[in-house]
Amino acid sequence: MTITAPSKSRTTEDKLGELRERLLEISDLGFAGAVLGWDQATYMPSGGAPARGRQKAMLSRLGHERLTDPALGRLIDAVQPFAETLPYDSDTACLVRVARRKFERALKVPADFVARRSTFSSVSYNAWTKARPANDFATMRPHLERAVEFSREYAQFFAPFDHITDPLIDGSDEGMTTVSVRALLDELRRELVPIAKAICDQPVADDTCLRGPFPEAPQLAFSMLAIKSVGYDLERGRLDKTHHPFCTKFSDGDVRITTRVRENDLSEALFSSLHEAGHALYEQGVAAELVGTPLGHGASAGVHESQSRLWENIVGRSRGFWEHFYPAVQSAFPDQLGAVSLDTFYRAINKVQRSLIRTDADEVTYNLHVMLRFGLETELLESRLAVKDLPDAWRARMSSDLGVAPTDDKDGCLQDVHWYGGWIGGGFQGYTIGNILAAQFHAAAVVAYPGIPKQIAQGEFAPLHDWLRTNIYQHGAKLKPAELVERVTGTPMRIGPYVAYLRAKYGELYTLPAV
Amino acid sequence: MTITAPSKSRTTEDKLGELRERLLEISDLGFAGAVLGWDQATYMPSGGAPARGRQKAMLSRLGHERLTDPALGRLIDAVQPFAETLPYDSDTACLVRVARRKFERALKVPADFVARRSTFSSVSYNAWTKARPANDFATMRPHLERAVEFSREYAQFFAPFDHITDPLIDGSDEGMTTVSVRALLDELRRELVPIAKAICDQPVADDTCLRGPFPEAPQLAFSMLAIKSVGYDLERGRLDKTHHPFCTKFSDGDVRITTRVRENDLSEALFSSLHEAGHALYEQGVAAELVGTPLGHGASAGVHESQSRLWENIVGRSRGFWEHFYPAVQSAFPDQLGAVSLDTFYRAINKVQRSLIRTDADEVTYNLHVMLRFGLETELLESRLAVKDLPDAWRARMSSDLGVAPTDDKDGCLQDVHWYGGWIGGGFQGYTIGNILAAQFHAAAVVAYPGIPKQIAQGEFAPLHDWLRTNIYQHGAKLKPAELVERVTGTPMRIGPYVAYLRAKYGELYTLPAV
Repeated sequence: MTITAPSKSRTTEDKLGELRERLLEISDLGFAGAVLGWDQATYMPSGGAPARGRQKAMLSRLGHERLTDPALGRLIDAVQPFAETLPYDSDTACLVRVARRKFERALKVPADFVARRSTFSSVSYNAWTKARPANDFATMRPHLERAVEFSREYAQFFAPFDHITDPLIDGSDEGMTTVSVRALLDELRRELVPIAKAICDQPVADDTCLRGPFPEAPQLAFSMLAIKSVGYDLERGRLDKTHHPFCTKFSDGDVRITTRVRENDLSEALFSSLHEAGHALYEQGVAAELVGTPLGHGASAGVHESQSRLWENIVGRSRGFWEHFYPAVQSAFPDQLGAVSLDTFYRAINKVQRSLIRTDADEVTYNLHVMLRFGLETELLESRLAVKDLPDAWRARMSSDLGVAPTDDKDGCLQDVHWYGGWIGGGFQGYTIGNILAAQFHAAAVVAYPGIPKQIAQGEFAPLHDWLRTNIYQHGAKLKPAELVERVTGTPMRIGPYVAYLRAKYGELYTLPAV
Repeated sequence: MTITAPSKSRTTEDKLGELRERLLEISDLGFAGAVLGWDQATYMPSGGAPARGRQKAMLSRLGHERLTDPALGRLIDAVQPFAETLPYDSDTACLVRVARRKFERALKVPADFVARRSTFSSVSYNAWTKARPANDFATMRPHLERAVEFSREYAQFFAPFDHITDPLIDGSDEGMTTVSVRALLDELRRELVPIAKAICDQPVADDTCLRGPFPEAPQLAFSMLAIKSVGYDLERGRLDKTHHPFCTKFSDGDVRITTRVRENDLSEALFSSLHEAGHALYEQGVAAELVGTPLGHGASAGVHESQSRLWENIVGRSRGFWEHFYPAVQSAFPDQLGAVSLDTFYRAINKVQRSLIRTDADEVTYNLHVMLRFGLETELLESRLAVKDLPDAWRARMSSDLGVAPTDDKDGCLQDVHWYGGWIGGGFQGYTIGNILAAQFHAAAVVAYPGIPKQIAQGEFAPLHDWLRTNIYQHGAKLKPAELVERVTGTPMRIGPYVAYLRAKYGELYTLPAV
């Protein structure tokens, strides 16, 4: 990028260049660590595990050392006056602003804490991978107690705050607080609970057509067709199989996704591929010149999740999407789906029911799972709930919120990795923010281009993709989430479009209570 | 490792610990770079290339910075007196000795030179990948001229020396010099030329049985069977496909190999897999406690190549190997090989002929290709040969040495990557040293365990593998190549066993001139 502002001295340009170089090295250390992580999840032989953990930790330590180097702070200070003369949303002004936030946040956390927590996190995660299948909460209890302590200790580095969870939320969804998240979730809850209850009291949709068995190869081939069709660039990405699907980025030219296949569930590979492709479209769409800086990725956890949910649910589970793709999936699986009508298939992939597992939950009940976790983790951090009482609290809350409770902890409070990776707080609200923003962004796109739903039914995804790229993706993390939402949709984040979307879609499939 | 020698103070133990920690970080930076390189060659989408080059260069720069850190030198100095009280071949004495050699060699090369050469190397390599298929030597000429300059400049950092090529040879085959390599090659040449001439004057073996077509999947399955059988541990490794086969190491628990498949050449995947598995057996066999130090890999280029050639040729192309495996390969390819006798197959995989391409050459003529390159690169470095005259010199030498000359440069002086990656000198002698040592080590193993050939014919590779692991692999780079050869075989490197091996094997297939 050429800087042409007249007030900038040669020295400032040099310093900006040095700042960019330092940030690129920090970014590249992160990308290198991501390659090691991707390999670990995809192709690494079991014997590679011990050294790989050490090597990833080393790269992350080197990145943290550079991010907390006082020389970086001096550079940011030196270019700040110049950056303040530039428009708020110019690349350079954003770069300096976001670099400062990253630097100052990193400085608050002692290197010793980072190392201790990283070690603890591996130990706890490894214990959980065995304890969950064994339904063994007792083993995880001391780990979870330490995780609460670690999270409280971490939050204290950012004191003062109104609520202990605030710094944890702010780390992934900048600008949100415990109060604002709670208000958002409560408002949504009031709308969702009656809808979910009404639907769950009606007969459950028949989804036996999704049970197959469906062989792996054509499932993967169809997933590839779907993600290519929506715009995922396979010259700058690839699809592999892992135990848990994810999206990862190594550069602007290499954004990969993974999926998992179940022979007895056609929706697994397909929708997890579309979900991760949504994250990947976002990352592939960030302007190349931002990648390698702290602006070179999505704006926040919630905004990122809005793109995975938009492409997975609002697009991928829409009737229009299947008007286009159903013949292709039928001919890939003629024995299994040849005699199944589009309507039956559509109802099956949008089946709503009371369920125990968040990641398998439908669009209507999913957020109730998130609310449960947000509520419990807040109570844990406030010391209003003791870890030993978590399993009972989980069951009680499941019963009251979802009308179903797990008989064991495996499908209860042991189900999600988040807490057992050592992070209590800040990790769940992004999922619901994502659902809300997905609908809000989609509604704005349709206002701008009313033809989008019809285009999707014809297999044309470029108009929606282009709108999202132009308005959201290319800007990376230049703006705060709230600024981005306001610019793109004209209002702050609001649940209206999401509730309207759910009511319209599910009102067609079920009888809903009147508004 | 616990250090128990009484003369060692607490301070020395601390310093040894710190030395090991620093060396582990240098090693891990190298391993992380190797993961990035493996991914680049196997699964990386094309869009990932530009950033990947930069990220690998960064990791290698960070490693070089640490290797030339004066604090590392001070630590080595501080522990040296203690190390000198230990037996010569104790782990710690070797560690300090080899770390010093690495540190002092690295110090001699300015960081600026490393960076300039690394950039040049990428540019030249990329140009070559296009120029070779286009048969375009003119484009490569200036690159090659710069490569000669770079190599001469590099050698000067190690002045004084007897010959400009000496430092380059010493870097990969420690202890060898231009004089000693030339003497070795000349001695071998006198033995080989009459044998090669005699064989090439006899009718060429019929290898149409190897032309297939052979589908990829069963070829890879048979390669997997073969490499597992010889002892390659797939829980600490894996086999993938790449354009050029290679072996790479990320830790003691993760040593990977790659192969390539040609549908019209059964020997390609099979023997390149066995070749790389030979390298991998060596690396998997290095004692775990040495990995992460400068001792944690093979002793030299030549000793490494001895293991790839031993498993590929002395074992993999032996009659005994195929007495065991031929039924399996026949049943994998019943249409292609069902009616082909073991004898015909054995003659086909050991076909000797005048050929243009080194990597496709047979055991008898292969070393003549190496001698040609060693001769020409020495003349280039001595300035006795100008780059512009290289194509003609290549053709003349091919005609006189191999009795066949390329009509173009693609199959002539453009064929090998080495020079076009920016390294002239030191890169070829290891192949012939490897052939010589393969026979010398194998002969020593058979003296120790005369049953080895019969065991191989029964599919039992563990006795040979165990002997090699015990005598060579586990020691990593603790000893200099010459020390290792003398300890393992009782004599210095000598061509006798290799010539005897060739005479015995090919004397059975062809009429050879009398000794």
